[in-house]
Amino acid sequence: MSLAEDLAKQQRSISVAEFFERNKHLLGFDSPTRGIITTIKEAVDNALDACEEAMELPDIFLSVSRQDREIYRIVIEDNGPGIIPDQIPFIFGKLLYGSRFHQIRQSRGQQGIGISAAVLYAQLTAGVPTIIVSRTGPEHPAHEFAIQINIDTNEPEVLSRREIEWDRTHGTRIQIEFKSTLAAKKRLIEYLRYTSVVNPHARIRLEIDGEVSMFDRVSDEVIACPRAIKPHPHGIEVGQIRRMLQAAPGTLESFLIGSFSKIGKKTAEEICRIAKLSCTADAPSLSANEQKRLIEAMQMVKVPPPPITQCLSPIGEDLIIRGLEKEFQMDFVKARTRPGSVFSGHPFIIEAAIGYGGKLPADGNAQILRFANRVPLMYQQGACAITSAISAMNWKNYAVAQAGLPTGPLLILVHVASTSVPFTSESKDAIASIPEIEREITLGLQDLARDLKVFLSRRDRNRLQEDRARAVCAILPELAEKVAEIVELPTPDISSIEGRIMHKLIVRKTVSEGMVRIEIKNYTSGQASLSLYTITRDSENNADPPPDFLTKMDEDFTRVWQVVVDPGKVWTTTYSGSAHGTVEIRGIDPRNVVMVDRDE
Amino acid sequence: MSLAEDLAKQQRSISVAEFFERNKHLLGFDSPTRGIITTIKEAVDNALDACEEAMELPDIFLSVSRQDREIYRIVIEDNGPGIIPDQIPFIFGKLLYGSRFHQIRQSRGQQGIGISAAVLYAQLTAGVPTIIVSRTGPEHPAHEFAIQINIDTNEPEVLSRREIEWDRTHGTRIQIEFKSTLAAKKRLIEYLRYTSVVNPHARIRLEIDGEVSMFDRVSDEVIACPRAIKPHPHGIEVGQIRRMLQAAPGTLESFLIGSFSKIGKKTAEEICRIAKLSCTADAPSLSANEQKRLIEAMQMVKVPPPPITQCLSPIGEDLIIRGLEKEFQMDFVKARTRPGSVFSGHPFIIEAAIGYGGKLPADGNAQILRFANRVPLMYQQGACAITSAISAMNWKNYAVAQAGLPTGPLLILVHVASTSVPFTSESKDAIASIPEIEREITLGLQDLARDLKVFLSRRDRNRLQEDRARAVCAILPELAEKVAEIVELPTPDISSIEGRIMHKLIVRKTVSEGMVRIEIKNYTSGQASLSLYTITRDSENNADPPPDFLTKMDEDFTRVWQVVVDPGKVWTTTYSGSAHGTVEIRGIDPRNVVMVDRDE
Repeated sequence: MSLAEDLAKQQRSISVAEFFERNKHLLGFDSPTRGIITTIKEAVDNALDACEEAMELPDIFLSVSRQDREIYRIVIEDNGPGIIPDQIPFIFGKLLYGSRFHQIRQSRGQQGIGISAAVLYAQLTAGVPTIIVSRTGPEHPAHEFAIQINIDTNEPEVLSRREIEWDRTHGTRIQIEFKSTLAAKKRLIEYLRYTSVVNPHARIRLEIDGEVSMFDRVSDEVIACPRAIKPHPHGIEVGQIRRMLQAAPGTLESFLIGSFSKIGKKTAEEICRIAKLSCTADAPSLSANEQKRLIEAMQMVKVPPPPITQCLSPIGEDLIIRGLEKEFQMDFVKARTRPGSVFSGHPFIIEAAIGYGGKLPADGNAQILRFANRVPLMYQQGACAITSAISAMNWKNYAVAQAGLPTGPLLILVHVASTSVPFTSESKDAIASIPEIEREITLGLQDLARDLKVFLSRRDRNRLQEDRARAVCAILPELAEKVAEIVELPTPDISSIEGRIMHKLIVRKTVSEGMVRIEIKNYTSGQASLSLYTITRDSENNADPPPDFLTKMDEDFTRVWQVVVDPGKVWTTTYSGSAHGTVEIRGIDPRNVVMVDRDE
Repeated sequence: MSLAEDLAKQQRSISVAEFFERNKHLLGFDSPTRGIITTIKEAVDNALDACEEAMELPDIFLSVSRQDREIYRIVIEDNGPGIIPDQIPFIFGKLLYGSRFHQIRQSRGQQGIGISAAVLYAQLTAGVPTIIVSRTGPEHPAHEFAIQINIDTNEPEVLSRREIEWDRTHGTRIQIEFKSTLAAKKRLIEYLRYTSVVNPHARIRLEIDGEVSMFDRVSDEVIACPRAIKPHPHGIEVGQIRRMLQAAPGTLESFLIGSFSKIGKKTAEEICRIAKLSCTADAPSLSANEQKRLIEAMQMVKVPPPPITQCLSPIGEDLIIRGLEKEFQMDFVKARTRPGSVFSGHPFIIEAAIGYGGKLPADGNAQILRFANRVPLMYQQGACAITSAISAMNWKNYAVAQAGLPTGPLLILVHVASTSVPFTSESKDAIASIPEIEREITLGLQDLARDLKVFLSRRDRNRLQEDRARAVCAILPELAEKVAEIVELPTPDISSIEGRIMHKLIVRKTVSEGMVRIEIKNYTSGQASLSLYTITRDSENNADPPPDFLTKMDEDFTRVWQVVVDPGKVWTTTYSGSAHGTVEIRGIDPRNVVMVDRDE
């Protein structure tokens, strides 16, 4: 027998399940520590996606409890629409099975691998089937399944199936056990905190061996579920269009109009004209050469970008800021939602935020929060396009120190929302380096960094002026005493002198427990008459004293107070709201005003 | 209809081919630039593996030529054992099909994805089938196939099949066309250069649009093909053993002895005793609980490590050094092959080398050469365990500057050889962070770095001594003249004074065009009598004058010359060999000897 025949005998088909069992690190199961967080991440992704589709405010209950020396039980329960019994074995017991792979819209889960990989990991390390309970509505009973995956075939094995009583009217409960440790407990809680930052409509409760962490919703608005779109004619490849043509009986013109976004009758005719094809040609019978001409014509014709807002669901600047302010105390925070863009025919939107100062750690690298389709990315920061875009910026241009990454009390958030997030591996830890995406991240961050620079330079200038004034005022009492001694007179009251030395109005904004306080202290010698402007997104109108004027533009509220402050006096207004937004003083020489964002 | 029913209708199975078509970046096809290098890499991996199995010295011919505006044709031809016709469609037209996935031994290809992914990429971007020619021996005809992949089913589609004339008696030829660019041509050549460093037995010829690069073999020794081993009892999971038990009719004892490495009768009996199971129990009918006890007992019992040398094929210190010396001019180079080790039951061996000085660039980060199973890793250096192990070391301890990575004229090579290399993704660009692997890399590099430190400090000390002596000697002639002027006598001959000031023997080793020259200059005042030792791997015995004594230990040749040098005289020997190895002087106070490795 020849060697080739000998080798041929060893050739075998490898099942997807076998492949991922061997390569479990590709799915984020490379260490026992990661197992729990990966499983919870996949289940929470699915629960949030399902609730979004059902227009339901998500209530998610998670519990982790130790069963045995190394075995942990993880339970994930949601109030989603439930899964019909016939589908349960496939969704949990077959890798590469799902509803979102073939749809062009933003969703957390994409590939139909995640949760079944956890089932695989459970049967590999604990040898225990996964228990699923699901109910699709009050008129249906709940079903309980015990499921495993047949490794050789990647098909589900149903070990048991029965109707059970369940107090929920709809939802799904997954109980899964595997070898793990709780060494990454802190990271798990961090993951849920970040999840709640970008999913402000979700309530998540985590119980670890009896200890409860609660992440409550801050918004009662249901997120609009992104709707699927058709593929865009730009960025389609010849292999794809060939398959689409073969599945589309009818004319070429109806194929073009019916199968793509943004192709109407006029565009379809133009494509046919450029490709030298008849509009009434039979779509499935185009020759290879005609197909090639068709695809070239499709790239040449002008077509508007895909309907991005319909298929994507960005978080929005306001909710990002609110989410960050809930979790971090900062002196400065701004967010940007960039306009939609496209890579290889896939629509995407970049959102970014920068926070500075406050209680952020003053030393070390900036804290980077990475998100893809509202899911926090917890591992492989170094391999991610977000990180490389941040490192590639020249932060020193924006008065921020840099050693590879920017350093100092800085927080950088980037959210990539896309119909097809290009992850570097199935474990979905890092975003691949796609030039279009990196460019958008850079543009968003540059925009924010410019604002940060303005903030920092104003802060530094103000600090300098205050420092000088304080230094003078600090020696004044002593000076007065000495002078009084020499001239043998009683020490004079110098408070008015202090004011005159300062020659300034001090405008100070402080925020504490949801209350904003703006204080204007007149250190000048004369009466100050000025206008105070605030431009914020705070919609509540409970300022005391109330503004003399209020106007709304887009999402922003502009409020104006006409203020008169006598020398040495203080004027104050307070209202409930958040730290962001701008404060301006008009009607007075700005050199006489010192702005202080926060008591320092 | 309920929402759950509505959602159920969208659920679909996703074929592996569809999955990878969408996620082509996972396989290293994320940009047209990468396409060519990824395809050549996969085909060269397969060719080298096949030649190794056939005990054949590989001759590989590659050509890249532009066909159309964006379409490139890539041809890869090898002299391997060929593929029998019935297997060709599956090997090239089905993802996850191969012979090496189920074998526990080192091989370049592992997963049966690589080359079929290139076929997939070709039909997607160029719409063209891949043409395969293969012949398994002079008595068989050559067959030519045109192949595509059915995306919906991941099954091969054979568009044509015929017998053809072919002048080769055995081998395989692949012709593949896809959308690409040659922007990464430099990197492609670099990839082949590194491939040839770690495969010194291969000859590779690359033709790009008529321009030829040749990488010739430096060794005519066929690499021994690693042999497959059975799984090791440690690190096996309950899910795996369950499947193995079910497929093993017979007693538990015969199952244990027959299915695992390093379990003999005694160990099998001990496992059964600890697990409280009978040796004669029927293996397939163990209960879940008994299986659990069995696996626990297997972890508890002492078993020798797996037969690492049999299933792995490290390059060896000598060939690494030879390979590096062929490509880089360095003052210092050392290599280490670490003893075998194991992670999660997978045997692995780390090899490392450090080179310093010479023509390596003096500035910037160290040059890092990463290899896995004799394949160079060209992308994602930042995401690789090799890089993080290097960064985590404190190089300043070894007199090497560091800024994250070590910097300066430094080259670091790391080769990970394993039966199962844990890549971070299917594109096989980076090695996942496995503590056992990182630890071995660190140990290997620390060992080498210690040698480097000794070299550097000796070099610095020698430089200092030489500098001082030179400084004194430089002013001597002037001094002599002045003195002669003052005492009104002719200027004396000061060469003997120079020698006396130096008070040293200078031993200088220089290498040029494969010739080593060792020169001993006696600057002392008396006759020097000493022994010169060289310990090298140079096997040629053409030294002039020849050594007085020669001995061989392992791979090392120790040569000894008894040397007498009169004051002011020079003694020299020359032989053909390489720069590595050590030179020692014995029989004289070492403080009187200055070693110079290279003319500086």
